[in-house]
This record gives sequence, structure tokens and C-alpha cells, in this order.
Amino acid sequence: MNTNRVMILGASGYVGGELLRLVAHHPGLEVAFACGRGEAGKAVAEVHPHLALAYPDLTITEYDPLNLPEVDLVFAALPHGTTQALAPYLLASGKPFVDLGADFRLDSAEDYATWYGEPHAAPQHLDDFIYGIPELNRDAIKGAKAVATAGCYATAAILTMKPLVDSGLVEAGSIIVNGMSGVSGAGKVPSPKTHFDSVHGSLGAYGLLNHRHTGEMQMALGQDVLFNPHLVPMDRGILVTCTAKSAGEGDPLAALAEAYADEPFIHISETAPATKAVAGTNAVHLSARRCARTGNLLALGAIDNLGKGAAGQMIQCANLMLGLEEGAGLTTAGVWP
Amino acid sequence: MNTNRVMILGASGYVGGELLRLVAHHPGLEVAFACGRGEAGKAVAEVHPHLALAYPDLTITEYDPLNLPEVDLVFAALPHGTTQALAPYLLASGKPFVDLGADFRLDSAEDYATWYGEPHAAPQHLDDFIYGIPELNRDAIKGAKAVATAGCYATAAILTMKPLVDSGLVEAGSIIVNGMSGVSGAGKVPSPKTHFDSVHGSLGAYGLLNHRHTGEMQMALGQDVLFNPHLVPMDRGILVTCTAKSAGEGDPLAALAEAYADEPFIHISETAPATKAVAGTNAVHLSARRCARTGNLLALGAIDNLGKGAAGQMIQCANLMLGLEEGAGLTTAGVWP
Amino acid sequence: MNTNRVMILGASGYVGGELLRLVAHHPGLEVAFACGRGEAGKAVAEVHPHLALAYPDLTITEYDPLNLPEVDLVFAALPHGTTQALAPYLLASGKPFVDLGADFRLDSAEDYATWYGEPHAAPQHLDDFIYGIPELNRDAIKGAKAVATAGCYATAAILTMKPLVDSGLVEAGSIIVNGMSGVSGAGKVPSPKTHFDSVHGSLGAYGLLNHRHTGEMQMALGQDVLFNPHLVPMDRGILVTCTAKSAGEGDPLAALAEAYADEPFIHISETAPATKAVAGTNAVHLSARRCARTGNLLALGAIDNLGKGAAGQMIQCANLMLGLEEGAGLTTAGVWP
Amino acid sequence: MNTNRVMILGASGYVGGELLRLVAHHPGLEVAFACGRGEAGKAVAEVHPHLALAYPDLTITEYDPLNLPEVDLVFAALPHGTTQALAPYLLASGKPFVDLGADFRLDSAEDYATWYGEPHAAPQHLDDFIYGIPELNRDAIKGAKAVATAGCYATAAILTMKPLVDSGLVEAGSIIVNGMSGVSGAGKVPSPKTHFDSVHGSLGAYGLLNHRHTGEMQMALGQDVLFNPHLVPMDRGILVTCTAKSAGEGDPLAALAEAYADEPFIHISETAPATKAVAGTNAVHLSARRCARTGNLLALGAIDNLGKGAAGQMIQCANLMLGLEEGAGLTTAGVWP
Repeated sequence: MNTNRVMILGASGYVGGELLRLVAHHPGLEVAFACGRGEAGKAVAEVHPHLALAYPDLTITEYDPLNLPEVDLVFAALPHGTTQALAPYLLASGKPFVDLGADFRLDSAEDYATWYGEPHAAPQHLDDFIYGIPELNRDAIKGAKAVATAGCYATAAILTMKPLVDSGLVEAGSIIVNGMSGVSGAGKVPSPKTHFDSVHGSLGAYGLLNHRHTGEMQMALGQDVLFNPHLVPMDRGILVTCTAKSAGEGDPLAALAEAYADEPFIHISETAPATKAVAGTNAVHLSARRCARTGNLLALGAIDNLGKGAAGQMIQCANLMLGLEEGAGLTTAGVWP
Repeated sequence: MNTNRVMILGASGYVGGELLRLVAHHPGLEVAFACGRGEAGKAVAEVHPHLALAYPDLTITEYDPLNLPEVDLVFAALPHGTTQALAPYLLASGKPFVDLGADFRLDSAEDYATWYGEPHAAPQHLDDFIYGIPELNRDAIKGAKAVATAGCYATAAILTMKPLVDSGLVEAGSIIVNGMSGVSGAGKVPSPKTHFDSVHGSLGAYGLLNHRHTGEMQMALGQDVLFNPHLVPMDRGILVTCTAKSAGEGDPLAALAEAYADEPFIHISETAPATKAVAGTNAVHLSARRCARTGNLLALGAIDNLGKGAAGQMIQCANLMLGLEEGAGLTTAGVWP
Repeated sequence: MNTNRVMILGASGYVGGELLRLVAHHPGLEVAFACGRGEAGKAVAEVHPHLALAYPDLTITEYDPLNLPEVDLVFAALPHGTTQALAPYLLASGKPFVDLGADFRLDSAEDYATWYGEPHAAPQHLDDFIYGIPELNRDAIKGAKAVATAGCYATAAILTMKPLVDSGLVEAGSIIVNGMSGVSGAGKVPSPKTHFDSVHGSLGAYGLLNHRHTGEMQMALGQDVLFNPHLVPMDRGILVTCTAKSAGEGDPLAALAEAYADEPFIHISETAPATKAVAGTNAVHLSARRCARTGNLLALGAIDNLGKGAAGQMIQCANLMLGLEEGAGLTTAGVWP
Repeated sequence: MNTNRVMILGASGYVGGELLRLVAHHPGLEVAFACGRGEAGKAVAEVHPHLALAYPDLTITEYDPLNLPEVDLVFAALPHGTTQALAPYLLASGKPFVDLGADFRLDSAEDYATWYGEPHAAPQHLDDFIYGIPELNRDAIKGAKAVATAGCYATAAILTMKPLVDSGLVEAGSIIVNGMSGVSGAGKVPSPKTHFDSVHGSLGAYGLLNHRHTGEMQMALGQDVLFNPHLVPMDRGILVTCTAKSAGEGDPLAALAEAYADEPFIHISETAPATKAVAGTNAVHLSARRCARTGNLLALGAIDNLGKGAAGQMIQCANLMLGLEEGAGLTTAGVWP
């Protein structure tokens, strides 16, 4: 396998660290530049002690969008809004670009304004990006120059519910997604809400009625969705427990199994999934059933928010874009316990 | 305040320990007997190291239902099914009896058989018990000789949703309760599911479609309910995130505020509640809102499953039955962080 | 019991919140003013959601050291260094003052400079403060106008080791204290080190060789001490595992039992203590043994760093200073699980 | 790389699951048999949901020591005492054998009896096993047919302290090891001590004065050691904080750096290590310093107890025995956060 040299923007954050971890053992990728403005000049070992042996000589550097170095692919895991400014330069460079930011996920500038509360700064580039969930649009990703990988909650909810919607099992407009996430989804910047003592031994909802990932869910599922996110005292993992009014008589578990029969990262089971089983991986564990008593469907999905919900999916997309084996550098074997 | 001597059946379990903790500082109660078959003969300090100084001389003892000692009230926190056998003796004794078991919570033997999968062994005594949630039926509890306090999930869901149902804000049959509980709800007996390494860093659903507390919710709310319980990596606390199709235009938060205006243990807020704020207390934190976009109501409630969800509510009921101040020995000040 | 009106400086922090929690159920104290500069103007319910029902109408206020209001006692739980500036005014007011700060704990300005790396700003007042561990110097506290309660680690280490030193069981200069603390000891201000994801599932040492509480341990134990503190993924609790070269043949457990025979908050046991058993309390659990093979003593102590290690001990000292029952408002019954 | 077919005894436990996880991505090993008596007949996906996608068709089987199948190497992660009975058959088979059990770690049957409280059942085979810490005895492992890999605590303590002892920096007999371990070290069998509610939010010592790993530490370090183990509320990870009276003037950090200059899995740093940085890896993070004030050395080491403390070290030894690259299938990049 040829080795492709990659540049990671946002390398000092949680997703950046996870990209570094995955690339360290990827047979077809190597890190050319690990960039991060705030921590530029520091050794990776200082910023990410867990990578001290894997990257003994790598230093976090600045990046200049006007002078992109020679690399084979760019990963960006930057704060929301940042890539709207970078995109013109990156797209002009012609380098394959995998962005985790929310900037280019939604189809329209109107939807962006609705969910992000501000006008889009580069609407002319919205069509240049493919929405990055390989199980949904693998072929488009293969041919893409720029991919905006899905949000963590959105990845979980869409993979859990889309086959049920597509099979006609869901009464339109009745989907409710209860999402529960570990704290790494909130990022590395310290705040009162991510203080250990605020989270440990506690559980609460947040972002009610207007969480931004709702827009992605609605775009992919083609209908209104009520999304209730919760913060859970664990570091990694997302579980979505989704309900909808049942339409038709089909078996929802069979619908999942059929839709994902050939997917290497998706596991379908009668057993309700647990987040820990997918920790550290790119795997998705799904289950579904119908409640005859109340006429509801119930479907559940578990992912690692930093894996399939972020860095793992970015690698999966990059593999497709570069013509590598789709699963290269990724794992399905969870770090358990 | 006169001191009432109480007998605790099931004193070696988690709820038994919490009853001992609360009675230790209760101005009107004192422990006469702490009973628990498996641990009989052991010092409280051995079974409950956290109570070593509070009960330096108390020993766990056996109890004989045919020879109940002279006490002023009996608390029972026994495994499901046990009090069906004990109830005839306890009721015949005429002593006030507060039971946490599920045996006498439901209105009918048929409902019991539906949710517990076995015929009720003492259906003739079902009418002898009052369902124990003081905010719902305070007067009946005051005059009762026997109270079956509500289940932990049921307490949270019913207190959260009943005012909305009673105010006509809920479309019948549309209620979905997503419940998230700490591990102490599963009891003290070790099992693979309560092993630290199974729970820590993980989140999953369990008991889907047929969790037994659903029966209580349906009884109190007068309609079918879909209940989705989850196990959360924390020891105490229950959060219920409830949704329903909206009916009418009333403000759900105002409905909660009006219903509970005079309740000393209920706090209504625009802010979504967190379980840690009620840890160690008898408090209930509630919030509610309407989603105009999807036409749903969203209501949330947090309790301590061992407090208001178990031992706290038992003390609250006992206070009413004995003519003591309702809040005696209870607190609303959470142990945080 | 007469009610004494207290003023709490630093009421918005963790220790301030714990003081508010304890005073809420104290029969002889009530909160007159809860002061905290950064959060002044906010309702207690907003700053401390766990106290929303206990203090529905209390607001955090500013304080002016030049115009102290009429109160019966002042508690201060302020950042290190702050009370050096306040002390002259507080002492001049003649009001009983219980300080948790490190400013007036050490005997000499030289020791302060050694451990805190800066000159003491009010050395003339060092003698005005009594070091606040009631089990060591109860009579002095009773007669004091100003008490500097001990640090959390220091309280645990001194209570664990002092009887062994006093009994001649310890070879001078050989004491090593391994301390392990929950995160609340680091305070409420968010930082990378207290981010949930930094702590959860991790354990590490910090402050090696020069942690400031070493100075208190050396002062109270009369010899050099090596202190190794660790941060543990839990919110409350300190355990100290202390070793020393054995001198003499006395039984260390008996020495503890004899020294603390009449102490209401100290529990001595052959069993190694666990921090959770003292959570939410003012209790101290101790054990000790000798290792014949290596000639070492091994002694262990567990406290709640916010209880006996901070707010609990402050209340205990205040009770003594005001002539109240020493244990008023305090508990030994841990919140477990 | 040729693929070697391995047999895993004890595949249903935590270490067995970790071996399966590591072998899944090992270029030179593949699982021929995953054996575990209690769970025989179950799919790996049922016993280890985190491996559902990695081993979709593998079933746990029984094993018959009298009829070992054709495999290239046997891993055993069995309860203490079990391999004493199996060893004669395994050794007779001539197959390379890597044992995690404690049965053949110690040099003499006397030491075994001292630390394990029972006579050794197969003392004639003690000399057939090499003690398995590659950094200490790599060449012996390369030539061995049977290796007894070190205990988790022992691995950490020995790697941390042996260079200091060998450099003459330690006063003989003065070593004290404070060990702090995650719960997975206690194994998968549920017990009151590993119940989530016993561990979460708590910290305590156990096994004081006579923990069995002390024997290994004394054997490798050539002197008496006091070892104080603690249980920490995390699932993976061991930290040892070691002290000793200082002898000589050498720099302990330099001694570590020199001893491990060429070791791919050992990271030396001035910074105190944290367990989370090595989670999921075979890495060892070490630090050391001298306390001039008290005349002590202080050295710290962090490993993943299931990685370098168990399955990782087993793979490392197997790689050496089979002539594979020593680091094949192993990683140094921690799963963080």
C-alpha cells in the first residue's frame, strides 16, 4: 500500500488526537503535519501524553491556508465556523479534504442559518462537499474531493433510523431521538459543564429543542425530528434511543439487517447495544423492535463519538477518497472493559 | 416530638441502609429492629461501614412474622414478591406498615399478573394498601394503615407527567418515558450487569417494552405509556425525559408550577434538571417545555432513586401516617459535588 | 438552642456550598449573608442548584471588609492568600472567625514562605489564630476568636499519624504519606486538569516533593514528612496510606483506639477504610497495623475532603467557639452508595 | 509474516478478551481455539459483545489437556492454581506456552508456599518456565518453550524500581510500593467488592501486608518490599508510586533513561505518569526524582493492567518465542480520552 502523507488541522483537540492515534497504525497514511494554533510549538508528547511513544519527534505547528504544503490529504477537526474561511483555499488546492466541521454538512444556506443562528459565509461551496456517511453514499464519497463528515449524534441517529424510514415503517414526523453522549463530545476546552465534579455521578439533558445536529437528522431522514440530547458521566460513547409511530407491519430488525447486510462496521443484534462495546472503534451496534401495546417502533444505536462519530469516519472517508481499502487503519474490536 | 420505634425489614440492602441513615437523624423515629435474613447476626457496622459511628451497637436480626415485636411502624424493603406472604400478618397486627415492594402497588390482580408474570398471592389485600406518593394522595396516606410506596422510575415519571395529563395538555396514548437510572436501582446483589467494569464508561438500555414500572405509570396516568429504561454509570439518581403529543395551548411549565405550588419537596425550573442536584435528598426537580416545530411536549424530572424514589418517600409516608411533620428527617439539600 | 447568624465568605465555591448545605439543617446556625464576589447578584439556586429548595430566597452578595454587618460568626472559604488582607478587619471586629484558608495555619512566617513561596503579608496576626483540628486542641478552639482549620490532606494525615508518633511507635523522619484525593479538592474553577475527560478512568500523582500541606503535617507531627498526593477519579474523599519505620513494640491500632476513645467522629477498625463510607459526613475512619517482615508501620485514614477536611471541621470548630454542642448540624452517617 | 495459530485458554475472562482483541489485528497470529469451560458453547459475540464484528463465527469451546489440538502456541489466562495441573501436558506437547497464571512465576516452591498459602503441586516444572518481562530477560524468553508472564502489579513495580536498585541508588530493604489498580485486575466474576456501587466514588486499600505479587517484586528486586495495593474507581490501569531511602548521589531519572534507552514500549519523562495515557496499550510510562529534604527516592510507573500487565506482555513474549517482530500486534498509542 502506498503511503499518503496527511495534514491534520486541529491536531491538539480530542478528535485531532484520535486521528493521530489511528494514523499511527494505518498502513496507508502517515502524518506530515499536525497543526493547531493554540498549541503550536509544543511536542505532541506534551499535548497528547498518550502518543508520546507513537510520535516521539512530532511537533504541533501553525498552518497557513495561503501556503498549503505538499500533502496527499487534509483532515480538519476545527471549531464550528472555521472551515468556511479555509474552504476556498483548500478547494482551490485540489487536495482531498475531509472536514469534521459542521460548516458544509447541510444542503442549504437556509438550513445552516436556521440551526447555527448565523448566515453561511461561503454558500457557493456548499455543493462542493459530500455529506460523509459511507454507508449512505459510498460512491459519492469515492469520487469526492471534499467531504463533510456527519456529526456524532447525527451519524448515530441516521444510521439507526434511515433503513426504517426507507422501508416505510415510520409514520412521518413522529421520530423522537433521545441521545446520550459521553463528555468528549463537548470538546477539550475546560468549562463549568465539563468539570469532573459537574459530570461525575450526574446526568442531565441539554440543548433541548434546538440542538444543531437536528438539522442533519432532518436532512437525512426527510422529516421533522425531536432530538433530546443528554450528557452522561463517561468519556466516550453515544447511544441513541429512537422511537416513532409504527407504520406498516414490517420487522424493523429485519429492515436493519437487510440494509446493512454487507457493511463491515455495522453489527445488528436483538440485544440492546451498549456504548462500551464500541469504545475505541469505528463500529456501529444497532437493534430495533416494535411495541405492539403502544404502536411504536423502538430502535437503538451505539457508536464511539470519537470513532465512527468523528475520527474513525473521517479515516473511512479518506480511505474511500484515496482508493485505499475502506477499513484500513480502523478496528471493530472494542477496548473493553 | 414523640419518638416512634420502627422495625426495618430488609435492613441489609441499599434501601434498608438508606432508611437507617435517615432515621439516624430523624427527630421522631428511632430504630428498634433492623432485620435481614441473609446478614442476621452481623453488626450494622460490618454490613454498612458508612453507619459504623451512627449505630455502634446495632445488630442485624431475623424477624418472625408470626411474632412481631412491639413497634410503632414497620418499614419493608424486601425483594419483589416477599410481602405478599407477610402482608396478612402485618395487616392483622394493626401496626402502620410502609412497604417499598411492588406487591401491593397496582390496583388489580390482573394488572399485577400482566406486569409481574405470575398470579398475585394475596389479592384480597390489594385494597388495604394506599399507593404511596404524597403529592398525589396525601390525605389517603394520612389515614392509611398500609402504604405501598411507588417504584423509583414510576415516582419520577408520574410526578413529571401527571399535572400535564390532568391539565389536558397531553394527547392520550402518546406518552413516551425515557428513564435513566444509576446502578443502585438494581440492588446490592452482585451480578455481571452490576460489575463495575460492565457499567463504568458504558450506557445501555434494558427491560425494553415490558419493564414492570410501566404498569404503575399507566395506572396513575390513565393511559398506555412506552417506557425505555437505561442504566447509567453513576450510583444514585433517576432522570426521566418524557415526551407526548401536545394537546391544547397551555404552558406545561405553568401547569407543573400550579400543581406543585405548595409542595415542599418539588422544585420547578426552566432549567433542565440534573440528578446530582437531588443526590441524598427527597427532592424532585422538574422542568417542561413545548416543541412548536414538532408538536410535542417535553418534560423532565430528576430524583434520587434511593431518596424520593425509595427510602425518602417511605419516611415521608410514615411521617404522614404517624401524624409527624411531613418533612421530618428529610432534606432537600443535595450532596454536591 | 439559640440561633447564631453566620456570614459565609466564598459561598459560591465547593466548600461554600457545603457550608450552606450543613447550616441549612443546623439547629443553632442560620445563614445571614452568603458572599462571593464573582457570583454576587445571583440566586443561590442558580449557583448551587442542589440548594434551590433549601434557600429559595437567598442571593449571593458582595462583602465589604470595612463594613462587616452584624453577625455572630464569619466563615471564610476563600482562595489562598485572601484572608491575609481581610484578617486585620475581621480580627478588629471581634467576631468569631473560622477560616479555611492556608494563610494562618502555620506557626511561623518562615514556614509560610517556605511552603507558599511568598512572604506572609500579616505575620503579626499568626498568633491570633488557633490551628483547627478539635481532636488535637479542643480547649484552645473553645476559647479562640479566630481559628484556621486544617487543610484536607493535613487533617487526614495528622489524625492518622499523631497518636502513633505520640506513642513513640515511629522512627523519627521516616514518615511517608501517600494521599489520594477526589477532584473537589482542586476547587470549582475549570482547568485542563479537572476536565472530566482528563480525570475519568485515570490516576496520577501531582505536586510531588513540595505540596503545601506538607508544612502542616510537619508542624503537627514534629518531623520531616514525604507526602505524595494523587488525584483519583471521584468527586469527594481523601485516603491517606501512611508508612513509617517502626519503633518499639506497641500495637498501633491500640494506640489509635486509646487516643480517640471518646471522639464522636472517629471510627477505629481493623478493616482498611474506604472513602465512600465517610462521604457527606464529618467522620474519620482509621486503621493501623505493623508489618513484621519489613519493620514498618502502616496506618490508613479516610475522610470526606469537603466534610471533615473542610466545611464539616469548620462547623465543628464554630460549634466549640459558640458554646454549642460540638456535633450540632454534623453527621457521621455516610451517603452510601 | 507467517501466521501462527494460537489457542487461548480462559478466553471468556477479561484477559482472554484482551488477547482476542489484540490477536484480531496481529499480522502473525490468528485464533485457532478460544477455550473457556464455563462459557463453552457460546458465541464470542455473546460473551464479548465488543468482539462481535471481529469474530463473527468463533465459538468458545472446551479444551482437553490430554488431547491438545495442532496449534503453534498456547496462551493461558486461567485462575490461579489451574496451570499446575495443566503444565505437565502442555510441556510434554512441546508447544510454546505463555502462561499468565501465578503458578510458575516464582523461583522456588518455598516462595510459592509462602505467598500462596499452599504447597506447589508441580515443583519439578518450576525451572521449565522463564519469568516473562522482556525488558529484563529478553534473550531467555526468545529461547524458551514456556514463559510465566509477570503479575500486573509486579510488572509495574519491577520495571519502575529495578534500574534504581541495579544502579546502587536504593538503600536495601527500604522499598515501599504503593499500588493503585483499576477494577479489571480483580477479574470478571461478580462479587460485593466489584459491584459498581462499592467502587464508584470510593477508594480503599486491600490485601495489606501479604498481597501475592509482593513475592515477585522481592524475587526480581532482591530484597524485602512493603507493598500497599489500592482499588481505584476506574476499569483499567495501574499506577505504582514507589519510595526508597536514597543511597548514593546518582540521578534516578537518568538511571531509568539509561536502562531503557532502546526499549520501544517504555517512555521516561520528568512528568508524573497517568494511567489513562497507557490505556489499551503495551506502554510503560515512568518517572523518578529524589527528595533532598527527606532523603528518599520517588519513582512512579503506569501501565494498563490488561495490556503490559497481562495480555500485551503475553503477546510480546509470544512474539519473541515465535521469532516475530517483538512489537507485532501491539500499540503504544493510548485510547484517550
